[in-house]
Amino acid sequence: MTPDEFRRLGHRLIDWIADYRERIEALPVMSRVQPGEIRAALPKEPPHTGGGLEAALPSLDYTIVPGITHWNHPGFFAYFPSNFDLSAVLGDLVASGLGAQGMSWQTSPAATELEEVVMDWLRQALGLSSAFTGVIHDTASTATLCALLCARERASSHSQQRGGLQDEPQALVVYASDQAHSSIEKGALLAGYGRANLRRIETDENHALRLDLLRRAVEEDLAAGRKPAAIVATIGTTPTTAIDPLAQIAKLAARHGIWLHVDAAMAGTAMLCSENRWMWEGVEQADSLVLNPHKWMGTGFDLSAYYVRDVEHLIRVMSTNPSYLLTAQDGLVSNFRDWGLPLGRRMRSLRLWFLLLDQGIDGLAARVRRDMEEARWLKDQVDAASDWERLAPVPLQTVCLRHLPAALRNDEAALKQHNLAIATRINEGGHFYLTPAMLKGRQIIRVSIGSALTEQRHVEALWQELVVQARST
Amino acid sequence: MTPDEFRRLGHRLIDWIADYRERIEALPVMSRVQPGEIRAALPKEPPHTGGGLEAALPSLDYTIVPGITHWNHPGFFAYFPSNFDLSAVLGDLVASGLGAQGMSWQTSPAATELEEVVMDWLRQALGLSSAFTGVIHDTASTATLCALLCARERASSHSQQRGGLQDEPQALVVYASDQAHSSIEKGALLAGYGRANLRRIETDENHALRLDLLRRAVEEDLAAGRKPAAIVATIGTTPTTAIDPLAQIAKLAARHGIWLHVDAAMAGTAMLCSENRWMWEGVEQADSLVLNPHKWMGTGFDLSAYYVRDVEHLIRVMSTNPSYLLTAQDGLVSNFRDWGLPLGRRMRSLRLWFLLLDQGIDGLAARVRRDMEEARWLKDQVDAASDWERLAPVPLQTVCLRHLPAALRNDEAALKQHNLAIATRINEGGHFYLTPAMLKGRQIIRVSIGSALTEQRHVEALWQELVVQARST
Repeated sequence: MTPDEFRRLGHRLIDWIADYRERIEALPVMSRVQPGEIRAALPKEPPHTGGGLEAALPSLDYTIVPGITHWNHPGFFAYFPSNFDLSAVLGDLVASGLGAQGMSWQTSPAATELEEVVMDWLRQALGLSSAFTGVIHDTASTATLCALLCARERASSHSQQRGGLQDEPQALVVYASDQAHSSIEKGALLAGYGRANLRRIETDENHALRLDLLRRAVEEDLAAGRKPAAIVATIGTTPTTAIDPLAQIAKLAARHGIWLHVDAAMAGTAMLCSENRWMWEGVEQADSLVLNPHKWMGTGFDLSAYYVRDVEHLIRVMSTNPSYLLTAQDGLVSNFRDWGLPLGRRMRSLRLWFLLLDQGIDGLAARVRRDMEEARWLKDQVDAASDWERLAPVPLQTVCLRHLPAALRNDEAALKQHNLAIATRINEGGHFYLTPAMLKGRQIIRVSIGSALTEQRHVEALWQELVVQARST
Repeated sequence: MTPDEFRRLGHRLIDWIADYRERIEALPVMSRVQPGEIRAALPKEPPHTGGGLEAALPSLDYTIVPGITHWNHPGFFAYFPSNFDLSAVLGDLVASGLGAQGMSWQTSPAATELEEVVMDWLRQALGLSSAFTGVIHDTASTATLCALLCARERASSHSQQRGGLQDEPQALVVYASDQAHSSIEKGALLAGYGRANLRRIETDENHALRLDLLRRAVEEDLAAGRKPAAIVATIGTTPTTAIDPLAQIAKLAARHGIWLHVDAAMAGTAMLCSENRWMWEGVEQADSLVLNPHKWMGTGFDLSAYYVRDVEHLIRVMSTNPSYLLTAQDGLVSNFRDWGLPLGRRMRSLRLWFLLLDQGIDGLAARVRRDMEEARWLKDQVDAASDWERLAPVPLQTVCLRHLPAALRNDEAALKQHNLAIATRINEGGHFYLTPAMLKGRQIIRVSIGSALTEQRHVEALWQELVVQARST
């Protein structure tokens, strides 16, 4: 495409996106298409001749948008948010336009150094000490896999440089709570530890990891000749935003030389506000830490912030240095290809840079406080209603609730059906999207507040809708 | 950022990108900044108040662009190309603007189904049978890691569901040529096989894997009680674009039940032209295959196409299904979160869609033919010059050459210094960027043709520059 065509279509698409964001509230949050519907609307064969882009642009409206579940909608209360602030859209546009690939410092010094700068800005904004060095990964899943690989290599004295995991005489064990994110299980399995060596530690009534059980599990493994390799502590679990007792876990990890990885994917953003930092007290003892600015902060997906204390170890685990990748500056600079799984690297730092310039730390912190305030308001409504139950504390912005009518009070199967029906009807209604989930055998409705456009009125309307649907279901 | 501000700054940045692409030829290809220079130009602390984006935009010109190595420059002959066609920039802009996160079908059906459609279009365009199903990964490194994990799990009967790799009594072995990409070594080590179980098979005078040595290595491992788990065959190696004898490797793999992964990261795009498909004869027997449309094709980084024959196996290795990710459509649809490492997924398919609509298969194929023609022209010049040597065949678009003046003919150390000096001077000259590398003990200059803006005149000018620098170095 020539720059002239790009100018013409680019201006049109900038307006199209602005229009989309302006009218987003009028769209049904969850897509209403049926399986196969989008596929059927598209040709089965690729276009052989070119020049068809402009003619296809209307299909963005007719085909694509109806198939989008609108993550930036003010009625998005599902999963965790994935805000793509319009300033970050512009940062990403610049990254694409430049098309720089920052695998090595030399292949675009600005890609490496801007990332160093903004990751250090973020570190400061979160109140982390300079013992941590940051690098951008795509997702927390990938960052956690890296952490578990680094833990494996530390515990096995770099077995990958010898006969691999099979060379290691002792079984290596990973610990996380039974509320830890699925990516911890996935990472542990892919890293080769095996399900038998993954301990899902039970949680207390607040859904936080039980330290006594963790301690006992570590001791049992040690007694049995196994080697505790990694503990993943979660600050803000996915089901309920529970907060594991990090400071005490850190002491246990230190005592036994166990790698401590902190998953603060969602909660990390809350640490922009100093009053929230009690939640991750002990974080300074972590070996690695991940948070997702692409969730609550607004950098847009995918942008995970991975911080480590021992950069040399990370590089030793991740680096390969064939001659065709060597450059004159090696040794003087960071080559981020050696800090994670992929070789090539997109210039994601521009998104974080644009967002921070546009909103400032204070602006982002204000939005965090607003969302936490809204969650407390919803919590109060639930607590005040005799036929609703709240199933977890609300330290952040997620409220786990269920309707508990007197007639069904002792019938878990009926309660499950009832609450699932409420959630389904609300999701199909188009104004709101929330996540039904199971929490320790109980069907809950999970309301996660954090879309940038969500104001108090939307939370109020959601509560009204919950009440109405509970009555009519 | 409000839609109004986005409109204003967005239009400005569209023009800025168009201007950048129009003037790109006038910029030095390789950035000339010194280590630390960009970092020093940026504030040490994050902005506390917002509203600073517009005022910072000029720093794109003053600070960022001087730190960019211009991968879309017509003088970019380094590594392999990473073309970000302007149509793909628009596709990416739409993806960011929509901000959809397609981890599950329900979280944006259009993200899943558009990906299914364009990956099937690409499959057809490459001449692959419908036995293959495609999914987009970020990079070939990640896709290859997935392939090696799938191979590990097949060879160990899903050891990750038991005690992990340590449970497996036999050592599992991975094979690739000594010219295979660094990501194969990295993937094998991270997947836990261990360096001792990675066989780097020697290559022939064309730098292709020697089948006799591969066969012998497999037999020796079998005789020693080890289990051959995976062979990675490369179609178009990174150093020289050598082509491993895939059809025969496939027979060997089939005979012993070894997972066959094909790395066609660069060469895959050439298969848009049916006359090139002899290069990957046997590909239909592969278990998995990766190619990088973000290299030669122009989709922009990062967009790797990963094709597999056994989708169920991929999902079995990669899936986790916590209750908060279950949706009503599970079982009816594809949930791409279970097809790779990350949980969340950006809508990369829009880039491939926009590119294919804009250029058509024929347009892309024509560019492949142009670049291969230019490479043959350069090859002919090298072959005709008595004081230059070509060190590898040129099946694709990469020419490996060195200056071989009579005076230095038997002095490898001097030849290394001489050719490294030529490459360094050319790279510092600003008009061209190419990769010095070592090939079996010899210093080569690697000229990789494939930037979309590169025309015959640029290749001619590069050849002139090589001749001039060789004379004066």
